[in-house]
Amino acid sequence: MARKPSLTGFPELLPAERVVEQHVLDTLRRVFELHGFANIETRAVEPVAQLLRKGEIDKEVYGISRLQDEKAAKDDPNALALHFDLTVPFARYVVENAGWLHFPFRRYQIQKVWRGERPQDGRFREFTQADIDIVGDGALPFRYDVELALVIAEALSSLNLGDFRLRVNNRKLSEGFYRGLGVEDTAAVLREIDKLEKIGADAVAENLSGQGLTSQQAQQALSLASIRTPDTSFVEQVRALGVSDPLLEEGLDELSQVIEAASTSAPGRVIADLSIARGLDYYTGTVYETVLVGHEKLGSICSGGRYESLASKGKKTYPGVGLSIGVSRLVSRLIAENSLVASREVPTAVLVTLTHDEDWARAQGVARRLRERGICTEVMATAEKFGKQIKHADRRGIPFVWFLGAEGASDQVKDIRTGEQVDAEAGTWVPDADDLRPAVGPGENA
Amino acid sequence: MARKPSLTGFPELLPAERVVEQHVLDTLRRVFELHGFANIETRAVEPVAQLLRKGEIDKEVYGISRLQDEKAAKDDPNALALHFDLTVPFARYVVENAGWLHFPFRRYQIQKVWRGERPQDGRFREFTQADIDIVGDGALPFRYDVELALVIAEALSSLNLGDFRLRVNNRKLSEGFYRGLGVEDTAAVLREIDKLEKIGADAVAENLSGQGLTSQQAQQALSLASIRTPDTSFVEQVRALGVSDPLLEEGLDELSQVIEAASTSAPGRVIADLSIARGLDYYTGTVYETVLVGHEKLGSICSGGRYESLASKGKKTYPGVGLSIGVSRLVSRLIAENSLVASREVPTAVLVTLTHDEDWARAQGVARRLRERGICTEVMATAEKFGKQIKHADRRGIPFVWFLGAEGASDQVKDIRTGEQVDAEAGTWVPDADDLRPAVGPGENA
Repeated sequence: MARKPSLTGFPELLPAERVVEQHVLDTLRRVFELHGFANIETRAVEPVAQLLRKGEIDKEVYGISRLQDEKAAKDDPNALALHFDLTVPFARYVVENAGWLHFPFRRYQIQKVWRGERPQDGRFREFTQADIDIVGDGALPFRYDVELALVIAEALSSLNLGDFRLRVNNRKLSEGFYRGLGVEDTAAVLREIDKLEKIGADAVAENLSGQGLTSQQAQQALSLASIRTPDTSFVEQVRALGVSDPLLEEGLDELSQVIEAASTSAPGRVIADLSIARGLDYYTGTVYETVLVGHEKLGSICSGGRYESLASKGKKTYPGVGLSIGVSRLVSRLIAENSLVASREVPTAVLVTLTHDEDWARAQGVARRLRERGICTEVMATAEKFGKQIKHADRRGIPFVWFLGAEGASDQVKDIRTGEQVDAEAGTWVPDADDLRPAVGPGENA
Repeated sequence: MARKPSLTGFPELLPAERVVEQHVLDTLRRVFELHGFANIETRAVEPVAQLLRKGEIDKEVYGISRLQDEKAAKDDPNALALHFDLTVPFARYVVENAGWLHFPFRRYQIQKVWRGERPQDGRFREFTQADIDIVGDGALPFRYDVELALVIAEALSSLNLGDFRLRVNNRKLSEGFYRGLGVEDTAAVLREIDKLEKIGADAVAENLSGQGLTSQQAQQALSLASIRTPDTSFVEQVRALGVSDPLLEEGLDELSQVIEAASTSAPGRVIADLSIARGLDYYTGTVYETVLVGHEKLGSICSGGRYESLASKGKKTYPGVGLSIGVSRLVSRLIAENSLVASREVPTAVLVTLTHDEDWARAQGVARRLRERGICTEVMATAEKFGKQIKHADRRGIPFVWFLGAEGASDQVKDIRTGEQVDAEAGTWVPDADDLRPAVGPGENA
């Protein structure tokens, strides 16, 4: 990633870097499947009209059109554009296929998304997201909000990224509190509180006053946002602010359930953080954000929440709760910081060398027996100089080279890191479990 | 796939269908890695100028542009478009990253590609390809052509699609033969022979005559194209046609090596077929096509060949040999014909039921112990009626339901297919290996 991409915003990984990304994606897939999430993929394009329904995003969308079509079809309601997230296409997929799906429907989806950022922004214009959502038909028990926090905590723990904090809040709690304060436009307050980390408390207080809040209301809102506890003690702290409202009570109860359950299964990692607001309007209850401890500048690597209506069709609504991991941003940072490094750039564990060109078929036989037992194996194509064959392995980080025995003699295998060379039989020899596949872990200067 | 996609040419799979596709992709990945291929991904877009270098494809390319850009930038040399294959972007990747790669570089790449087909064509406009290539720096031993045939034969065998034929020819053989016949524009003859399967021998003979061939030359070219052998006996049959040329000899030797090696490792599946021409100009030696026996109408599911210059930069050239599998076309057909079916639509093997809502945390503990041992497990969110909980499992094909024991009593697990119910302990119980993951195999009416 230190290399500059030839097209700004469209970085490409080298093979060893891709090993790291694959490790991250495989780990996420494994955890999601262990929790019963089924995989789907949606097409890369949606009608422009569908993508622009939320209004504010139109600046960042890539339209597509057949090159030979005479005129750009921007105003055509059937015009197509690349999706900018996985939520909009998933909502469409649920409505279109509702008759074939079983609700609650739990799915994970790992795909590229595109945003038409200006090149000079230095932002990714193509990146990979990994989303999980659980969607109900008409209703969805609150407990899935609790479950999703556990799933994501487990997924992130499995990635061995170091310490992280899954920060959870509940829109009902915040909005109920503002309502209890006598504020009418609670959404506007949420939007201002959302800026807290960026612009600081004083600036937010000023903005809130601009929204018509009294300085006492603004102070109360900021006091609420300052509450952050690793356990359910946030409830007492909120009550100490002396505000009451039925929606606030509901929010306190829901958030308590999440924190309570998480404190046993992921102690210290899932915290109540009443400053979390999530700018987007469609969240209606639980909201999640996640920071890597020591990498707070990276922003939230995994965010989401509860929405009462992911999609609707006629009288039907599909409420859901979901989380999205920004894989590319996370992986590119981990690679750049040497926090995750692959032990080699190829899957290969063994290189079968050739002393004579005509041994090639025999070497393929050895390779076949090794592969049958799951050992990734390459065969040299020609009997080059011995040093060149060793270099072939060494440069790629292939740990073992195999020598075919001369007539009557046993084959031998050499660990090129230690120089140790022993007799070996292709039907039984096994490398150390650590050497079987490229290992991914912290780099030396991480 | 029987469902009609809401956007023509952009089909989407249901979860159970995606299980089939994932099985195919996982199998390909496993085989490619066992043979030492490293994975990379390239960005989805390329400069239009880059994509159109080959000229004839411009009708099928999707250009992209930011929606808010005032005018479509088709004539802009920096305009971007979605890639229509994985070869063009791979060639660019090799040139751009040559300094970081180790040659011969063997990579596999599994990604979506897009073609701007007209909707009424009923063709896929978005589909997944799986490519493998081995690329050299300046030179690449011929033996890799042999190896690739073995890798692909093993990959297709591992997919259990039924019988297939990897049909191999060599451009040097055909072109040398035409040259030996006294034909000058050998490429034109190849293009006509390429139409043989589509339009028949008579029509091809007529076209060849239109290209200036004598009727005897045309008959000889057609005789060559009729040769098809499962072993190296094609050599004798070619010689019997009485044509000689040094390039022909080279082609006979190369093709013999491929067929010879394949006859031991994939007997009967890799055949010499001298009608294979591959329309594209860049192939220079071995060419491959693959048909599923009994599904010949599907066309070639996997094609490729040797190219002396995948890419070049200054004096450097990068020769390569590669094959591409049309995964979407293959998978959609297998699904439509019930040839591959998933045993269930979710990864879940066990559903932990709830008798009382307050047992949820305990149920999560059971689920955690099962997951720790690789058993995919879901927990009911609420203590619904027993029948409803069983239905939840049954509809999704989840084979086992788990019952938490009342105080002092053991937990129990029930196979909902047989009704068998036994005492079980979450730390030790295991399902049959067959039930651990969704199985993929032929459907009942396949």
